[in-house]
Amino acid sequence: MHSLPKNVQKLIDHFVRLPGIGPKTASRLVLYLLHSSDSFVVDFAQTLSDLKSKVRFCTRCFNLAEDDLCSICKDESREGDKIMVVEDVLDLFAFESMGDYHGLYHVLGGVIAPIQGIGPDDLTSGMLIKRVKDSKGGIGEMILAMNPNLEGEATASYIKGELLKLSLEGLRISRIARGLPTGADLDYADKVTLLKSLQGRVEY
Amino acid sequence: MHSLPKNVQKLIDHFVRLPGIGPKTASRLVLYLLHSSDSFVVDFAQTLSDLKSKVRFCTRCFNLAEDDLCSICKDESREGDKIMVVEDVLDLFAFESMGDYHGLYHVLGGVIAPIQGIGPDDLTSGMLIKRVKDSKGGIGEMILAMNPNLEGEATASYIKGELLKLSLEGLRISRIARGLPTGADLDYADKVTLLKSLQGRVEY
Repeated sequence: MHSLPKNVQKLIDHFVRLPGIGPKTASRLVLYLLHSSDSFVVDFAQTLSDLKSKVRFCTRCFNLAEDDLCSICKDESREGDKIMVVEDVLDLFAFESMGDYHGLYHVLGGVIAPIQGIGPDDLTSGMLIKRVKDSKGGIGEMILAMNPNLEGEATASYIKGELLKLSLEGLRISRIARGLPTGADLDYADKVTLLKSLQGRVEY
Repeated sequence: MHSLPKNVQKLIDHFVRLPGIGPKTASRLVLYLLHSSDSFVVDFAQTLSDLKSKVRFCTRCFNLAEDDLCSICKDESREGDKIMVVEDVLDLFAFESMGDYHGLYHVLGGVIAPIQGIGPDDLTSGMLIKRVKDSKGGIGEMILAMNPNLEGEATASYIKGELLKLSLEGLRISRIARGLPTGADLDYADKVTLLKSLQGRVEY
């Protein structure tokens, strides 16, 4: 569009590179910013430019952190004998906002996806195995909380295999439950979900 | 969420203030930025911080501009006797990307909305009337291109009234056509759209 000032077009192009934002949304965001207060835009830009320099990844669990360890790994009130293995930080956020899990985490940084050329070496799974080994039996339970899809299942299965190779006694390996989500309608559920909800039925 | 580094939370809060972006989308965007290259993030921040200082509004039509006049007002190949009055810059972008309009624009900066306390004085309509008056008959056609809703119609009607007060001979005032959009299904069209498509029928 020949009518856009260079800087506006450049900012739109930046927004468009973000996931889920198309050219129309990007234009709307930039126009909103143009009508926002100067202080908001300047503060936004400053926070953005600080992001990479001020935020690191926890050296133990690969959660976002400000120091070597993230706030969860530093928190001594958490149950240190439980590790929940999640695909990415957003999944960790989801469990944290639930508020009922008080153990530690391990962020894999993705899932095994051969088609996209992502193997176990591209994830932090090696560091996870080392972490469990180094704990010398200090880990009582590993909760595999990858997404219930093809890649998630393959990754969970791979990690289970690696953990079993350590042949640690007393290490419980669990997988988050599959079944019908709250508020679901049996009518509309797919066959696999129904099967899982039957296989995973509990005493009532 | 107690697990988020301050800077990450602050950036999420900034994104959430943008229209159409909720906390989940904001987290996803920030996580994407954390995994993007340093140069992209730094360049993004720089463009954002330059936005307000480098972008202005055209003193004639209130389009975005880098100088006193926007690129459309400066372009001498455009038809200077036509002004299309639009609500905001996004509407101008929409007509520009269509590519078939070669006249000038006037961006109102909103519509008359008494419930939100927006009156004609909050818009650039006064400047539009002055612009038409100062042109001393140089404007042949005013195309009122506000949205076809209550506020848009009220604004169009107000501007028409003000233009008529100038009693300029040879000034044609038009309103963009209403009817069925391309690809629409008569079955699903609302009554007002059907009525407008009938009232506005053209020789075939």
